[in-house]
Amino acid sequence: MMNKITPITFENGKLILIDQRKLFEKEELYTCNTLFDVHFAIRDMIVRGAPAIGVAAGYGMYMKALSVLTEDRDIFLLEMKKAGEYLDSSRPTAVNLSYAINRMISVIQQNSSTVSEIKKMLYEEAVKIHREDEKANRMIGENMLSVLKGSKTILTVCNAGILATTAYGTATAAIYLARERGQDIKVYACETRPRLQGARLTSYELHKNGVDVTVITDGMVAHLLSQGVVDAVIAGCDRVASNGDTANKIGTKNISIVARYYNIPMYIACPTSTIDMAIKDGSAIKIEERDEREVTHISGVRIVPEGVKVYNPSFDVTECKNITAIVTEKGIAYPPYTDSLKILNI
Amino acid sequence: MMNKITPITFENGKLILIDQRKLFEKEELYTCNTLFDVHFAIRDMIVRGAPAIGVAAGYGMYMKALSVLTEDRDIFLLEMKKAGEYLDSSRPTAVNLSYAINRMISVIQQNSSTVSEIKKMLYEEAVKIHREDEKANRMIGENMLSVLKGSKTILTVCNAGILATTAYGTATAAIYLARERGQDIKVYACETRPRLQGARLTSYELHKNGVDVTVITDGMVAHLLSQGVVDAVIAGCDRVASNGDTANKIGTKNISIVARYYNIPMYIACPTSTIDMAIKDGSAIKIEERDEREVTHISGVRIVPEGVKVYNPSFDVTECKNITAIVTEKGIAYPPYTDSLKILNI
Repeated sequence: MMNKITPITFENGKLILIDQRKLFEKEELYTCNTLFDVHFAIRDMIVRGAPAIGVAAGYGMYMKALSVLTEDRDIFLLEMKKAGEYLDSSRPTAVNLSYAINRMISVIQQNSSTVSEIKKMLYEEAVKIHREDEKANRMIGENMLSVLKGSKTILTVCNAGILATTAYGTATAAIYLARERGQDIKVYACETRPRLQGARLTSYELHKNGVDVTVITDGMVAHLLSQGVVDAVIAGCDRVASNGDTANKIGTKNISIVARYYNIPMYIACPTSTIDMAIKDGSAIKIEERDEREVTHISGVRIVPEGVKVYNPSFDVTECKNITAIVTEKGIAYPPYTDSLKILNI
Repeated sequence: MMNKITPITFENGKLILIDQRKLFEKEELYTCNTLFDVHFAIRDMIVRGAPAIGVAAGYGMYMKALSVLTEDRDIFLLEMKKAGEYLDSSRPTAVNLSYAINRMISVIQQNSSTVSEIKKMLYEEAVKIHREDEKANRMIGENMLSVLKGSKTILTVCNAGILATTAYGTATAAIYLARERGQDIKVYACETRPRLQGARLTSYELHKNGVDVTVITDGMVAHLLSQGVVDAVIAGCDRVASNGDTANKIGTKNISIVARYYNIPMYIACPTSTIDMAIKDGSAIKIEERDEREVTHISGVRIVPEGVKVYNPSFDVTECKNITAIVTEKGIAYPPYTDSLKILNI
């Protein structure tokens, strides 16, 4: 498998993450010993990407469970619910976080075993969430390849790659599979200000795995697409509403409008765990606003004069009408999404 | 006048520029003593912005004239033509550069005076180009205000402000005039990667002149425009083709497509010297590609892993159909531009 990066490992009761704040300059590991550490790691984007956040959250809940020293099931459930709420507050936009937390809580609620036995089941559930991610991404890749029909040049945004998951990535899965099979594939990666995940992470992992990748600034999208060199856009996502409206990294909405203008297909790659059937449309998705410093500073250097205001929404919502297909591990949803997503979620 | 910045001064035979590579951190001056210095200043973006480049070029040609020590008119003309070609090579996209050079050359060609007398006329022509810029920008501002009809919130890109001209700016002229008259006006400035002229320069000069300015990253445009808080987009430009296709800083094309999608008017502000009636459409405009380092590094810090390719077109061409009006010192051109620009250029 073409995957020289393992962003998440769970060993000896510790969650070991590649510290994505340090990439690409340093390949450092960050070890989480407690739920608090996991909360910090998600909030500070040591681990990032909706699927990876979900996997980390599963292990975080398990670590919390180990630290709750009671044999009383009710107390245990109460403590775990509190822990879940706390962990869920680390980042508001991605639904995978609450999805993983809810699965862990459900294990407790649905088993009448002793607390010690439930702790073992929680470990198994966390591992299951982890393994499912890898499997799901491979299937997303297979399904995406069938949609791409031999497209050779892909534009992507932010990082929905290996680093945003546990293997393969979502948006990158088809790219890695194509590469594994010796197919010719070329990627343009938007640098994705403010945090530069495209420039720093997507380019890093694609290049490391031998994929031909070219970084552009976010403002170059229209110029690039107008040249006719890009066959398709693939983006990951943080939450898909039941009508297909999709929250993803800020800048995705721009790309979707420009891609539509040039009749270039725009695909969303995600596991079904990212689909939130509980919300009607994108207006119900909370958009995280992050620290001003992400805009005013790059690598610690100030690029906006002091006293000048900045705006830093971290995500935007791509309208369902500008999405050609939503590609999941269970299948491909086409418009109208209100129907097709319902079928995938059964 | 609200204009606490004087980017270009000519004193004692020297061209004194605010070194825009150093802004906003340092307000340093850069002195050009020779044509070579002016070439370097334009190429390295010490002076930048199509109108400002034109003004600097006029003085550069005059400085060259002083250094040509001959009384032979033919030799003088030949030397000046060579100098013009050399200076014109400093940046390829903006037409104002060749416009100013051609005006200086014409002074020589159209006068049968002695070389010493022509040198005096060249000085007067350079000053005239300079003074015309300030006057033109004020008129662009007046005309833009009439088009804006009380719009309160403007999105702009790159820097087509005071720093890109000699006073008022082109895109910012209406903003400064509105502010002078006590009108309520708010500006969003795209940071404009790779060189960050929006974050570094536009925010600097607007803030210094008391205008309410908020910096966004280039990827935030669609999200911002979808919120309904922006009334109009104003951009400067480097060259307008006879059909209205407009070259401007990379990223403008993105914005024009997104503005059209949200039915927000997109205005181009420029002096008529930026209109190139000699070319049919945007496909004839040469797009400068600049050093990769502009994309791979910010403030000297590498943000793209070594070995990864980058693409760095410095401009893009906004299609005439996505431009609501082109506002000049002589009047306002509306579509179809093939007709309206012709009338303005008579």
